[in-house]
Amino acid sequence: MTLDLTTFPELNTPPRLLLGPGPSLVHPRVLRAMATQLVGHLDPSFVELMGRTQALLRYVFQTENALTLTVSGTGTAGMEAAIANMVEPGDSVLVCVAGYFGARIADMAKRYGGEVQVITKAWGEVFTPSEVKAALDARPAKVVAIVHAETSTGAMQPLDEIAQIVHAQGGVLIGDAVTSLGGIAVRVDEVGIDVCYSGTQKCLGCPPGLAPITFSPRALEKLDKRQTPVTNWYLDMTLLRAYWDQGRAYHHTAPISMNYALYEGLRLVAEEGLEARWARHRENARLLWDGLQDMDMQPHVPEAYRLPTLTTVRIPAGVDDMAVRKRLLDEYNIEIAGGLGELRGKVWRIGLMGFSSRRENVLTLLTALDKVIHG
Amino acid sequence: MTLDLTTFPELNTPPRLLLGPGPSLVHPRVLRAMATQLVGHLDPSFVELMGRTQALLRYVFQTENALTLTVSGTGTAGMEAAIANMVEPGDSVLVCVAGYFGARIADMAKRYGGEVQVITKAWGEVFTPSEVKAALDARPAKVVAIVHAETSTGAMQPLDEIAQIVHAQGGVLIGDAVTSLGGIAVRVDEVGIDVCYSGTQKCLGCPPGLAPITFSPRALEKLDKRQTPVTNWYLDMTLLRAYWDQGRAYHHTAPISMNYALYEGLRLVAEEGLEARWARHRENARLLWDGLQDMDMQPHVPEAYRLPTLTTVRIPAGVDDMAVRKRLLDEYNIEIAGGLGELRGKVWRIGLMGFSSRRENVLTLLTALDKVIHG
Repeated sequence: MTLDLTTFPELNTPPRLLLGPGPSLVHPRVLRAMATQLVGHLDPSFVELMGRTQALLRYVFQTENALTLTVSGTGTAGMEAAIANMVEPGDSVLVCVAGYFGARIADMAKRYGGEVQVITKAWGEVFTPSEVKAALDARPAKVVAIVHAETSTGAMQPLDEIAQIVHAQGGVLIGDAVTSLGGIAVRVDEVGIDVCYSGTQKCLGCPPGLAPITFSPRALEKLDKRQTPVTNWYLDMTLLRAYWDQGRAYHHTAPISMNYALYEGLRLVAEEGLEARWARHRENARLLWDGLQDMDMQPHVPEAYRLPTLTTVRIPAGVDDMAVRKRLLDEYNIEIAGGLGELRGKVWRIGLMGFSSRRENVLTLLTALDKVIHG
Repeated sequence: MTLDLTTFPELNTPPRLLLGPGPSLVHPRVLRAMATQLVGHLDPSFVELMGRTQALLRYVFQTENALTLTVSGTGTAGMEAAIANMVEPGDSVLVCVAGYFGARIADMAKRYGGEVQVITKAWGEVFTPSEVKAALDARPAKVVAIVHAETSTGAMQPLDEIAQIVHAQGGVLIGDAVTSLGGIAVRVDEVGIDVCYSGTQKCLGCPPGLAPITFSPRALEKLDKRQTPVTNWYLDMTLLRAYWDQGRAYHHTAPISMNYALYEGLRLVAEEGLEARWARHRENARLLWDGLQDMDMQPHVPEAYRLPTLTTVRIPAGVDDMAVRKRLLDEYNIEIAGGLGELRGKVWRIGLMGFSSRRENVLTLLTALDKVIHG
């Protein structure tokens, strides 16, 4: 076999402004970290970096959980790590589905042998604690899973009371924080989320490729009591724990560069401060929402539970979804996304996350959107 | 929670010469690709990049397989993708174990419900076709798995005749090419390997984080006939196929930067040419072997099936394994590795892979090793 080398030109990517549901733009300091030559995954300097990263992850998760680490895949691998380790064959599982990613959790929980019950809400709505309680009163669940920030709808699910309800009937709570961690408050210990996971490519301002995850003592107790091994070897926390604990027992070759990137991304979070970072995400979202209102465009999610990190806005009547997005991309290098599932063709999804959440980006988008829609 | 920022200093990694079992050093052009700002994972330019990467992967795998792609994890995720998709609960599986990674395959195959039979050889040995045939005559297997290049022993397993034997009794052959792809010949179609996977961080000269993998028509036929869904959602090829095929149906957020890196790494392979690249790996291995012999050090694996990419050399009597490796690292910034399992304390593992496989690196190592051992 031979190749025509001319068909493989040098990498030459367009300079996009990433304002979709992720990945978001990467901070220049993180890009620089990505270009660092490697050390080995068992090098003393890398082991030290792992420890520092764990400390920074505890800060962004607001937790004291010892088992706070990353799994070596994207956000979906974080989701699967949560499900694969918490759900044993035959376990009763309740999944609250109000969007695409809730449905994905339910699919995974079935694959790992869970007896899955699903409660649903319209996409864009959130669950009330009493709805969750009613479902658990009717059938208790060892595992309850819910999405904190639904990337497909832009709705933010309050978790405080739900966590108490889940614990009162003896279960563990899995919370998906893929589109919230680092952009809005995710208070793992205070709220009582037992397994919480995220991705690096949204509000943490890094490329995709790692999934931060944390396990509470209650989650570890469930893990330790398993009767069967975790089917998923790559994401098996009983093995990964030994790799990330003091022993650093070899498990797999960590993605070194992505760990460099995450460390730098977390340093940026720490320098900015979590509270200031949450405020920045709120303020830029407010700027976007006001600008959309000025163009008579309606947000899909009521403000009471609207995510500042990802806004779903209804596509105005008579406006061509695909044509607008294609012109934004082709003429202005701006990426926003269309709707998924129930919301396909009905909303656009606009992300303001991490390094993408900047005042100038909001103005650029609003101006370009106005030109594309109104000419 | 507050943080003491002074405990999180700027990333400052030591300039290691990586001559262990991987990761190997990354080519400067690949590092530059890593630092490229992102586009979205559904961006037209990224979709085009995926297609080009697939064409280049077919070249390095020497295959026409349509389903040739990467999974978004390290080499172990590639192994798990092979097992999770090929092994259905109740399937008879034969695993040939002559080292650490063969044993890992057997563990995974059991977790996915395989009825696993294991045949073993001493670490550093390889299987004869007749040994595999005898095992399959005694108990046929739907899936046979074997490691082409055992990272834990440095032995290279010939696969040609074994593939024919496996096919003659109606099974599929899984071959682990983590430490061979891009460094020695891996002729997937000619040999008849049905599922072949590797990692990016060894002979391809990229950071760890992606696992190239390819499925033959025979493997796809087995996949299509499954009675049960693949337990592993993240690595489910029935879903990943739809993402990498023409449709590009959303599955997960690909690690954009790692895909940039792999594309550049594969361009470098194509520019050098596979045959020239294999020759370079052979020549530098020969230089190493001759140099070790001059120091009266014995290779663990007979030359007939010794890997040029990874050499296991016996630690001379009276020499302190750990002390030598620590001095190489601390005084010369050189990483080599110790033995695993049966070979712990008995051998060192020296990798000459990808961008690490250079004449000057061999000389540096030999000289430093001589100074450390002989003063």
